[in-house]
Amino acid sequence: MHTDPNCLFCKIAAGQIPARKVYEDERFLAFHDIHPAAPVHLLLVPKHHIASLADATEADTDWLGAMMALAPRLMREHGGAGGFKTQINTGPDGGQEVMHLHLHLLGGPRPWGKGG
Amino acid sequence: MHTDPNCLFCKIAAGQIPARKVYEDERFLAFHDIHPAAPVHLLLVPKHHIASLADATEADTDWLGAMMALAPRLMREHGGAGGFKTQINTGPDGGQEVMHLHLHLLGGPRPWGKGG
Repeated sequence: MHTDPNCLFCKIAAGQIPARKVYEDERFLAFHDIHPAAPVHLLLVPKHHIASLADATEADTDWLGAMMALAPRLMREHGGAGGFKTQINTGPDGGQEVMHLHLHLLGGPRPWGKGG
Repeated sequence: MHTDPNCLFCKIAAGQIPARKVYEDERFLAFHDIHPAAPVHLLLVPKHHIASLADATEADTDWLGAMMALAPRLMREHGGAGGFKTQINTGPDGGQEVMHLHLHLLGGPRPWGKGG
């Protein structure tokens, strides 16, 4: 599995930096965002290093789909049963802050964030 | 393929309601959002009817992954090469407005939307 020793989320996946983990399996890790933008704000990341969704191709279909299918289960279990947003920020215009692809899971009772 | 005759996005997929389409294949349709929240704002939807991501299970992995892998290609081709956000709103607390799962593709030169 490709990892980047200088990557924050690779270090979290390797246990070198602590995080409030809520889920882990062979391919994925989920933990609480340290700057939550909603009552529940989890980050779901692949354990292998991929910088952004801009780097994804059809070869990434399997794990991308598994990650998306995992999202509703995690939100049901962690306070997002009433609804949630799933968001990936990609590149400079997308506001991406950590260059390891991560899915934001935002939920909990309204109001929070922007509408729509 | 399961469709819902009363669903807005099923009607668009069937050609019964017009939309500014930018992409179509056997499984997916992409078109411009009629209320854009960014310089480029596309909606990418599966042609089959699924109300929301809350209804997705591991059985949906294949098409969910293909949809996510298609996103960067569409944004490169339609003005989002500098970065973009991909977002699914699910259920009441997620701000979902049309009950047919849809992936928002938001991009173009900043500023637009919220940061982060």
